[in-house]
Amino acid sequence: MKGIIAKEPGGRDQLVYVDVPDPVVNPGDILIEVHAAAVNRTDILNREGKLGYVKNPVIGIEVAGIVVDANGHGGFSHGDRVMGLVNGGAYAEYVTMPANRAMKIPENLDFNAAAAIPEVFLTAYQTLYWIAKLSKQESVLIHAGGSGVGTAAIQLAKGLSDAFVITTAGADNKLAKCKDLGADVLVNYKEKDFAQEVENATEGSGVSVILDFVGAQYWKQNYQSIAIDGRWVLIGVLGGSTVEKVKLMDLMMKRIQLTGTLLTPRSDQYKAELTREFSDETYELFEKGELKPVIDTIYAIEEVQKAHEMMEKNKNTGKIILKVKS
Amino acid sequence: MKGIIAKEPGGRDQLVYVDVPDPVVNPGDILIEVHAAAVNRTDILNREGKLGYVKNPVIGIEVAGIVVDANGHGGFSHGDRVMGLVNGGAYAEYVTMPANRAMKIPENLDFNAAAAIPEVFLTAYQTLYWIAKLSKQESVLIHAGGSGVGTAAIQLAKGLSDAFVITTAGADNKLAKCKDLGADVLVNYKEKDFAQEVENATEGSGVSVILDFVGAQYWKQNYQSIAIDGRWVLIGVLGGSTVEKVKLMDLMMKRIQLTGTLLTPRSDQYKAELTREFSDETYELFEKGELKPVIDTIYAIEEVQKAHEMMEKNKNTGKIILKVKS
Repeated sequence: MKGIIAKEPGGRDQLVYVDVPDPVVNPGDILIEVHAAAVNRTDILNREGKLGYVKNPVIGIEVAGIVVDANGHGGFSHGDRVMGLVNGGAYAEYVTMPANRAMKIPENLDFNAAAAIPEVFLTAYQTLYWIAKLSKQESVLIHAGGSGVGTAAIQLAKGLSDAFVITTAGADNKLAKCKDLGADVLVNYKEKDFAQEVENATEGSGVSVILDFVGAQYWKQNYQSIAIDGRWVLIGVLGGSTVEKVKLMDLMMKRIQLTGTLLTPRSDQYKAELTREFSDETYELFEKGELKPVIDTIYAIEEVQKAHEMMEKNKNTGKIILKVKS
Repeated sequence: MKGIIAKEPGGRDQLVYVDVPDPVVNPGDILIEVHAAAVNRTDILNREGKLGYVKNPVIGIEVAGIVVDANGHGGFSHGDRVMGLVNGGAYAEYVTMPANRAMKIPENLDFNAAAAIPEVFLTAYQTLYWIAKLSKQESVLIHAGGSGVGTAAIQLAKGLSDAFVITTAGADNKLAKCKDLGADVLVNYKEKDFAQEVENATEGSGVSVILDFVGAQYWKQNYQSIAIDGRWVLIGVLGGSTVEKVKLMDLMMKRIQLTGTLLTPRSDQYKAELTREFSDETYELFEKGELKPVIDTIYAIEEVQKAHEMMEKNKNTGKIILKVKS
């Protein structure tokens, strides 16, 4: 079969579409004919050899395709359309994945749309529900509303919890997208102090949940914005990791729960349970069109270098998709 | 009736045992004949007028006594022995308390022992179970093991969860007490680096839960000591509140849940639910002697100035009790 490898650890020019060995189907796996793969930041790190050196790795962790070998796993049959996160090898004609992490694709979605779901929606779901325990009609502040996880989080918070969603972004076209997806309050952080906007929008009580991709740069304002008994989830440090002074008494006075999380290093068991629950909770909402994958650009697999360039330059506001099979 | 008031906001010499008005029994309250009250740090702040000025406040928040007016609350009858946290007025012959925060006293315990239970055991229970969600046989690091909350937490973690308990204290006689109460690993923090001891005792994996009364001074070592997916609960800042240079990525890498909490400012509803659950879970263990209130000294109510002096000088390792009725 053919797949995208990095000839040597390095830049985009190292990516080539060449003959590679067929994947080995181990117990626990199913074999998928890949129709679309999505580009993730971890793919760039893998290409650069920053995830530990592997010779000529087949890049990619997110796919949508058709089951061609269910390998005895009762939940799947030859021909089923599935999507999910894989342990590498997604930019290829075939890939294996653990059967307990594969999700059936809602009927109304094509493979490109399906490939845009797993990473951002699973991360947003985990953060909002497994960590922040968002309840019905609570308020939530979602930073980077135009990002992949941001757009997924806005939709889940509205669609599953009828939450009051305040979101920040640095460009009006991104905020317009957030509004389309259901956000209630839109803050351009370049023009306004989001803590003040949160105070106004919540009549001074603050938000129950914060999804924080930004870290140090927003520390003070996030503290001002959170309600008593609020849950503050750290899932990124785009604005720096080091906070110069943290007053622990502040955390006690507001009884804040501050949780750091990463999805990728979690156990297989955790990911399987998360995948199952997410699929159960959201399948129908995707089918009805109440949840929508957000795609920026679809490239042919041969255009992988352009796709990586787009991600490296942060030009996208939705997912970047590689079409593997027409 | 008679009660202890502060003549003026100030020192111990302001405390006098004098005639005061009988308490008013409001709907929701029961009336208790007080047999014993316990001394708490908040009593000193109240005496000093630091909790907001009230003229001649009757001091005290923790009692054990006998119900003399159940005021229609079906759960109680005249003559029941009860204990609990009250909204002031505990150092007196009679006090009212919300019926839904009163707990029946296990039969084997006298009033002095019962008065030593509510504050420290409810705080330890809330911290270990409602916030840190301690599971069976998990590991927990309990700082200030000789303190009131520390001694309660060690017993609850062993008695309810068969947990692996590592505890710190600064004196060998305190550690000996912790050992009596069931602690598995004892660390004199003046002689050893507790983070190293935790590493040795957990074979490098760290503890699942930390009860942190110390704050800034232990920040680095607590971070070293906590396991992946660990829950770290801040309930005091005896070692300073301000931490310099906190790296948020560290919290993400270990997926730490850091929660600040205080019990006193919680809602009446919260305290009522906590009291009920605590009483259900622990009543039998107190009766069997598997949980034991820890008393340092019992004073007569007339010796209240000595009792406050002992607390102010941090001389006690268990509760200080005021005997109101013989």
